[in-house]
Amino acid sequence: MRMYDLIDKKKRNGVLTDSEIKFMVDSYFAGEIPDYQMSAMLMAIWFNGMNDHEITELTKVMAHSGDMIDLSAIEGKKVDKHSTGGVGDKTTLIVAPIVAACGGKVAKMSGRGLGHTGGTIDKLESIPGYRTVLSRDEFFNTVNECGLSLIGQSGNLAPADKKLYALRDVTATVDSIPLIASSIMSKKLAAGSDCILLDVKTGSGAFMKTLDDSIKLAETMVAIGEGAGRRTVAMITDMDTPLGLSIGNSLEVIESMEVLQGHGPADLTEVSLQLAANMLYLVGKGSLEDCRKLAEVSINDGTAFERFCKMVKAQGGDDSVLRDYDKFAKAPYQCEVIAKTDGFITNMNSETIGVTSMILGAGRETKENDIDFSAGLVIHKKYGDEVKSGDSLVTLYTSKKDSLDEAEKLYRTAIQIGNKKPPQKPLIYARVERGKIEKF
Amino acid sequence: MRMYDLIDKKKRNGVLTDSEIKFMVDSYFAGEIPDYQMSAMLMAIWFNGMNDHEITELTKVMAHSGDMIDLSAIEGKKVDKHSTGGVGDKTTLIVAPIVAACGGKVAKMSGRGLGHTGGTIDKLESIPGYRTVLSRDEFFNTVNECGLSLIGQSGNLAPADKKLYALRDVTATVDSIPLIASSIMSKKLAAGSDCILLDVKTGSGAFMKTLDDSIKLAETMVAIGEGAGRRTVAMITDMDTPLGLSIGNSLEVIESMEVLQGHGPADLTEVSLQLAANMLYLVGKGSLEDCRKLAEVSINDGTAFERFCKMVKAQGGDDSVLRDYDKFAKAPYQCEVIAKTDGFITNMNSETIGVTSMILGAGRETKENDIDFSAGLVIHKKYGDEVKSGDSLVTLYTSKKDSLDEAEKLYRTAIQIGNKKPPQKPLIYARVERGKIEKF
Repeated sequence: MRMYDLIDKKKRNGVLTDSEIKFMVDSYFAGEIPDYQMSAMLMAIWFNGMNDHEITELTKVMAHSGDMIDLSAIEGKKVDKHSTGGVGDKTTLIVAPIVAACGGKVAKMSGRGLGHTGGTIDKLESIPGYRTVLSRDEFFNTVNECGLSLIGQSGNLAPADKKLYALRDVTATVDSIPLIASSIMSKKLAAGSDCILLDVKTGSGAFMKTLDDSIKLAETMVAIGEGAGRRTVAMITDMDTPLGLSIGNSLEVIESMEVLQGHGPADLTEVSLQLAANMLYLVGKGSLEDCRKLAEVSINDGTAFERFCKMVKAQGGDDSVLRDYDKFAKAPYQCEVIAKTDGFITNMNSETIGVTSMILGAGRETKENDIDFSAGLVIHKKYGDEVKSGDSLVTLYTSKKDSLDEAEKLYRTAIQIGNKKPPQKPLIYARVERGKIEKF
Repeated sequence: MRMYDLIDKKKRNGVLTDSEIKFMVDSYFAGEIPDYQMSAMLMAIWFNGMNDHEITELTKVMAHSGDMIDLSAIEGKKVDKHSTGGVGDKTTLIVAPIVAACGGKVAKMSGRGLGHTGGTIDKLESIPGYRTVLSRDEFFNTVNECGLSLIGQSGNLAPADKKLYALRDVTATVDSIPLIASSIMSKKLAAGSDCILLDVKTGSGAFMKTLDDSIKLAETMVAIGEGAGRRTVAMITDMDTPLGLSIGNSLEVIESMEVLQGHGPADLTEVSLQLAANMLYLVGKGSLEDCRKLAEVSINDGTAFERFCKMVKAQGGDDSVLRDYDKFAKAPYQCEVIAKTDGFITNMNSETIGVTSMILGAGRETKENDIDFSAGLVIHKKYGDEVKSGDSLVTLYTSKKDSLDEAEKLYRTAIQIGNKKPPQKPLIYARVERGKIEKF
């Protein structure tokens, strides 16, 4: 088998066989196929795509290039969740304890934030003492005891994907649905859960800007998951507007605790309930409707919140901060951004709001940057809200006084104030299960 | 400027600017852009192509990456010729002396053969003593004295093209008309002639298998030549059937001398006269019709043949072999391939016939192989000819007795004998001049 022939085949819109895909990925990962041949192949895939079978094989081969985590030491059905990334997206902190409270198991490895989106692990590390690195046994024990454990990525998951992604990143071949889908799913397959709930974000703050592309990506990932024997559902949720009101690490933990105690923002609560319901549905807790009710009860009776506190304690964290937010480190500087006109918020650019939070210190521009856990912002006027001149639009929090001016200017460019109340937008656009697309 | 952005632009079917093309080629040639980015770009070009302006710029930048030969020391208009390569294509040996005899100047650098096609330089080296390497002054003097000089490629012509071609060769991006056209023309621009006659071969023995692709390639190369200020015409000629009857180095020199003396095969004579007429037309010797007559006269009065002999002598060759073919080295083994049935030759696969000749020793499988100048074959029955059982189809010549069996078997697969005389095929399909396509 020669890589040259495989490039030529794909360029002519041929279908790669299972053994050709295995040869290509394994040999590339082993350094036997040079970067310049793989990048020509990636560009041919960018143009001609891959069918669901090819994508599933590619995903499996990449997953098997490293550790395949065996979660069988954890009793019951394990359900994983993946978000394609958004601004203010703290749903993992909410849905994982809800699912645990209702009898599902969440043994989840999460990532750190980069650029305008945050990462679950950074948020958790704002809780004093919380350990995001556990041994395998500690991880399994925590899930068995608490129903959930949220840790950083450990082990050697899908290293072939990592090598391929680095090449895509410098050859303008990132934005290919088959390549995005196989990259995400290779890590999910390696992470070992039985079921996978995908949250595909769509809109200005998301990687996928259009609903059509988001649905296509969701369908592709569901096909891969099911093709690899994992029950998989995808929800397509809005990221035109940030989710909830708080952006920044400890600010998002606080907001998540508010949701778990029944008094969080309506949009974040609703999206979290739907995601949790789908995860419970995947692990077999009944119909979607039944699962939704279970999720609501776990908030109302406090069991979801208790689960989260139990996990934090089990992982060395100080759970008292979750009940008394004043115990979190406080940002020394804060500033209100004041409306200069009357009207309605007619547009919010989530990506720009994410960048504002990064500038304040809440995120990283490069992998090497440190994070300020207390930095970020809390929105007071969201899309559709009425605004009067003099109202506070947002409060900015930072340890870098110098950043406030730039952040305020940037935030003002991120929102538009018009004189007509804009139409309501859906929070959730669609749901994909086994090739069936339900649009809302 | 970042190569990443240029790849992304071309992948989205954007048009690269002059400065982007210059940056890309110069930086790649300087080793500042890695192979893996250039191969992604090449594949994007394979899919989306380039417009005539982009191709012309690419060609110019590649030409200027090395020596730009200044032929001003040669008096009069210089005309170059390029063939895209065929089996039995010895027209350079015929048209160059015709053009010289009629007052044009041919200062031509030719290549060696590889694979199933031969090279002019190998053919010339079958003439004892002929020097294919001359100093620049010797080259200019020979052209000034004889009207022509045929030498091997010297100097550093379009080295950026050489580097790019090597990458295309291993990334399945050779077969792209913009890339083929710019590669050929970059070397022609660097070689310095005022006018360029392109012989684009079409059919089973050619790189371009279809007439449409051949015309597209011809149009592209003519656009490049004219865009770079060189008068350029392209002829699209048949390579479904080998040109002439002889294939192999000294065998082709002999056949060429036969044409120059007025008793060569009809097909080869006709194609040569048309090519020569177009070269004379390009250097301003009158209408195509007038130029055709000039060319015919130069054969009939022996001046073309004398020009060739004069050049051979000037370059150290023994021109007596051109008058007494017995003086050429002889292949020790020869073998007739005998027809086993009656009928007509209904098909000849030129590529397979070229490979047969290579197996006999006339060509190289790899760049390192030596050539046997006396090896090759002489066809007795060509496309359309009637065959009786027992007739000799071809004579094979070789120094490697062992190769005869394989060569005979291969030759038999290259021809088909049917019972109906097949329709006549044109020798020349089309002519392209300044975007005007004339089909015959």
